[in-house]
Amino acid sequence: VLIIGERINSTRKSVQPALREKNESFVIEEARKQKEAGAQYIDVNVATMGDQEPAYMEWAVKTIQGAVDVPLSIDSPNPSAIEAGLQVHQGRAFVNSVTAEAAKLEAMVPLVRDYDANVIALCMDDQGIPNDARKRCEVASRLVEHLTRQNIPSDRIYLDPLVYPVSTSPEAGQAVLETLRFIRENFPQVHTICGLSNVSFGLPVRKLLNQAFLLLCMGAGLEAAILDPTDQDLMRLLCAGEALLGRDQFCARYLQEYRAGKLGVAPDQK
Amino acid sequence: VLIIGERINSTRKSVQPALREKNESFVIEEARKQKEAGAQYIDVNVATMGDQEPAYMEWAVKTIQGAVDVPLSIDSPNPSAIEAGLQVHQGRAFVNSVTAEAAKLEAMVPLVRDYDANVIALCMDDQGIPNDARKRCEVASRLVEHLTRQNIPSDRIYLDPLVYPVSTSPEAGQAVLETLRFIRENFPQVHTICGLSNVSFGLPVRKLLNQAFLLLCMGAGLEAAILDPTDQDLMRLLCAGEALLGRDQFCARYLQEYRAGKLGVAPDQK
Repeated sequence: VLIIGERINSTRKSVQPALREKNESFVIEEARKQKEAGAQYIDVNVATMGDQEPAYMEWAVKTIQGAVDVPLSIDSPNPSAIEAGLQVHQGRAFVNSVTAEAAKLEAMVPLVRDYDANVIALCMDDQGIPNDARKRCEVASRLVEHLTRQNIPSDRIYLDPLVYPVSTSPEAGQAVLETLRFIRENFPQVHTICGLSNVSFGLPVRKLLNQAFLLLCMGAGLEAAILDPTDQDLMRLLCAGEALLGRDQFCARYLQEYRAGKLGVAPDQK
Repeated sequence: VLIIGERINSTRKSVQPALREKNESFVIEEARKQKEAGAQYIDVNVATMGDQEPAYMEWAVKTIQGAVDVPLSIDSPNPSAIEAGLQVHQGRAFVNSVTAEAAKLEAMVPLVRDYDANVIALCMDDQGIPNDARKRCEVASRLVEHLTRQNIPSDRIYLDPLVYPVSTSPEAGQAVLETLRFIRENFPQVHTICGLSNVSFGLPVRKLLNQAFLLLCMGAGLEAAILDPTDQDLMRLLCAGEALLGRDQFCARYLQEYRAGKLGVAPDQK
């Protein structure tokens, strides 16, 4: 599973003040920490900065990549902020995110193409987020069709089924799993991605639900995830899941993590 | 997920001496503990008692059911031991297990039918355990055909794909998941079951792999599991998995377990 670290996000209360005051050592440390914990990309969201979002995005991208050798996921609903980030980004970025909304596609897709980026495409359109799996699969199909027609290569597309809280809708989890399986079966060259944590919104012990949901999604064909890589319980289960799904030949990585003391103590060896 | 508690098994070193000396309070306490932890059935295996296995099975079934109100899974490769257990069992038992081996079917299926039991049917035949998913699905189909022809109702049949250690064969996990999906799709009235722990044989931190595999199997349609219900981390993840799969309407059971303090501390509330 490709991991995008989610921690640098201005909607998190503990993060916003540091971003607002452009605390360089804070964002660098957050990026470094997530990379060391296993993130291949670091998501950067400064969406709460309002008018100044593009300037903040440029600052954040430059600051992080000036200190840590890691590609970023430029995360904003605002095309100007996305472009400000892409302009100064080194290497191939993620654009997080487009949707099937007409205005969004028009504003965002040319940026994805011109800057040769990967793109996270959310399964929602001008009618909102579909409740059931069937409609999400329809939106997914439309997104793939539109993006490839606009010359975005299939393997740069990461479809996100979008996750509802299971507290408000009991079939929320199954809808995501069905959409993931649909994408893997029908668009084998397109990738799948998920932001996991929304599934547990409104319920206690959210980490437990997020852990279980990561495994369920992996079994349904999840290839990338936006998550907190410093959550060791989650990362341990992810590592076990890869071994069990045959994506970790002869469990080499699992054993390596074990030897590095990252899997916790073996109960058999206490 | 229907839970069969696996702890009363004579092949476990810590259990064998107590069984050998017919320690009543030990087996009663093991059964009670597993029932309280959420097991709906308790597996009883006294296979290491050799010639005396039938007598031990009779003793174990009477002793447990004399003290704890719980149905049992009569677990033996020996038809005489199975019958000795079934003869004194109250309520509907599980017979654990038949296979597609000719001699096994001939000896065991009449017992399952005559004692109106549920049956665990392992996906192996006289050629051994098939390596790949396709052959397992073939064996599964033959088992269903044979058992229903012998008048075992479909909904009393629990097919176990059989789990190889992932340490010896990287596709072991995927083969199980594919077989589970095949059974759910092709035999909707037949149930699926798994003994999980073999998947982690030979690897460190086995509990972690067993936890991850339980979730992967649940996502692929697992309906029953043979496991240690006193493993709280495993049971917590199982509870989260049920909520996420929409099998726990409005997360009622998840919230109940939380209020009973069984899910651990909510990180949000520390």
